[in-house]
Amino acid sequence: MHSFPTIEDIKHAAERIKPFVHRTPVFTSVSINRICDARVFFKAENLQKVGAFKARGATNAVFSIEKNNLKNSERSVNTVATHSSGNHAAALAYAACCCAMHAHVVMPENAPPVKKAAVAGYGAEITYCEPTQQAREDALASIIEQTGAVFIHPYNDHRVIAGQATAALELLEQVPELDTVLAPVGGGGLISGTALSVSALKPETEVFGAEPESADDAYRSLQAKKIIPVTNPQTIADGLRTSLGELTFPIIQKHVTAILTVSDTVIIEAMRLIWERMKLVVEPSAAVTLAVLLTKREQIKGSKIGLIVSGGNVDLENLPWLKQC
Amino acid sequence: MHSFPTIEDIKHAAERIKPFVHRTPVFTSVSINRICDARVFFKAENLQKVGAFKARGATNAVFSIEKNNLKNSERSVNTVATHSSGNHAAALAYAACCCAMHAHVVMPENAPPVKKAAVAGYGAEITYCEPTQQAREDALASIIEQTGAVFIHPYNDHRVIAGQATAALELLEQVPELDTVLAPVGGGGLISGTALSVSALKPETEVFGAEPESADDAYRSLQAKKIIPVTNPQTIADGLRTSLGELTFPIIQKHVTAILTVSDTVIIEAMRLIWERMKLVVEPSAAVTLAVLLTKREQIKGSKIGLIVSGGNVDLENLPWLKQC
Repeated sequence: MHSFPTIEDIKHAAERIKPFVHRTPVFTSVSINRICDARVFFKAENLQKVGAFKARGATNAVFSIEKNNLKNSERSVNTVATHSSGNHAAALAYAACCCAMHAHVVMPENAPPVKKAAVAGYGAEITYCEPTQQAREDALASIIEQTGAVFIHPYNDHRVIAGQATAALELLEQVPELDTVLAPVGGGGLISGTALSVSALKPETEVFGAEPESADDAYRSLQAKKIIPVTNPQTIADGLRTSLGELTFPIIQKHVTAILTVSDTVIIEAMRLIWERMKLVVEPSAAVTLAVLLTKREQIKGSKIGLIVSGGNVDLENLPWLKQC
Repeated sequence: MHSFPTIEDIKHAAERIKPFVHRTPVFTSVSINRICDARVFFKAENLQKVGAFKARGATNAVFSIEKNNLKNSERSVNTVATHSSGNHAAALAYAACCCAMHAHVVMPENAPPVKKAAVAGYGAEITYCEPTQQAREDALASIIEQTGAVFIHPYNDHRVIAGQATAALELLEQVPELDTVLAPVGGGGLISGTALSVSALKPETEVFGAEPESADDAYRSLQAKKIIPVTNPQTIADGLRTSLGELTFPIIQKHVTAILTVSDTVIIEAMRLIWERMKLVVEPSAAVTLAVLLTKREQIKGSKIGLIVSGGNVDLENLPWLKQC
């Protein structure tokens, strides 16, 4: 038996993080509706703090720690740490900044300068390491030993999952009647949180995960009924290269109808469509859900579909539809 | 004496166009506020129908015609026409489509395919011509003669100006206390409408126009106290290459504090900043106001500033900060 975050946990998370995150708008596009022959609602987490839904999970985790420790522990925890080259790094740095805690982030030396700058901009301390999983974990372990920092995992943490779940909670308030909700699948924090919110509040609404074909570990894991990790997947959707975690997998098994996969070519097409028609900057990972819709026009005809647009942190020098110089 | 559109005209326009245009959101960015050392409110008309504020003026003009003719004229007008290679073409096509009228648009043969597709997508009839002013006007005159179409000028029309004014009307409802409002200046429809709304509702709030240095006809016209047109100006801000009109100029003279000019280099910097920090796709013309702020940090320190973000129709193949292949 796994004990999942409950809808009460998620509602508490929503209250807890409210002062620190945006209630992001939901957008629609007549032309995209026409292309899909469906009504599509985009929950714009690219406009979230730090440019991604990750701000929700990180602030919920960090503010949960603080409370727990003030109440229950002798020692006050004032440092958090993680290893990440992506949006979770900036999100944790932001969350720590919001509650005057200290954040340590282990990043690979070859992380994009813009990501380094974002993390540093929120006042986090960055430790650079070789770009290998082992080097990251070693560097993190050493920081935790030295500082007593609490490790906040990017997705395999119930506080993080409950935080990510608040995006769908809001979406269901903003658009109560949806036939289907789709969210992208990386480590599974967003999709599992989404599935928990939707199954509790709208059990008749189906939840699907959207995944790049070339990083289809969630698809294969559901088939195999056990976690099958990916190793070094090649996909434009850089936020979705991670594998499911032990906490996110069982939630997905229970509450997600299916994982749908799509090629990078269609992901790029969908990303460009969102930029062009909706005037929103979204990252490739955030376009995977629309990409799935583009390949399922027959099946979705006439339905009302909510998409969690996960983030908008993209290298404006390297847009995937442009030929490189 | 010029009779300007009144605040009642503008409020009527807002009611008239309400079913056909978005009440666009207002966004803020902590990091842009920090860069400017001011509080900046972005009225996101890039998220407007047809991707630009032009939808407001065009729908107001088109729906005004229909009403007038039903009441006052023997002959029902069911065709409108314009010449434009830019956002007004799509806006007029959209407006005509909304009220089941027919639209003719004269476009230069060399207009970008994406603009041609947008106009055609709303069901307008396109007449291509040589890319000269004379060829455009000749083609338009011939269409008007053949079809009895009503010409809707892109800016030199009080119904259009009143429509564009509704963006600032909304902004003042959304953010009532602003020290300053800035809008870009091309033909002057948006800035004159903005100035009319602000001066009527918040006379203590100052209105400034923002213009590219290399298309500074409004700046020079205000200095000279007469319209000084630009000829073939070279600026990245393609929406601002037109010169002021006889109707927009006197409104600007009366209600705009000053026209502030800025270089293309800073316009590109500002455009990129909006994409990167706010995750909004905006066209170069829409970034001219923020560009002005970037050059006036001392003067604007601590103030509350509203910017009308005019549009988001940009060629995603040719971003100005990327070296061309």
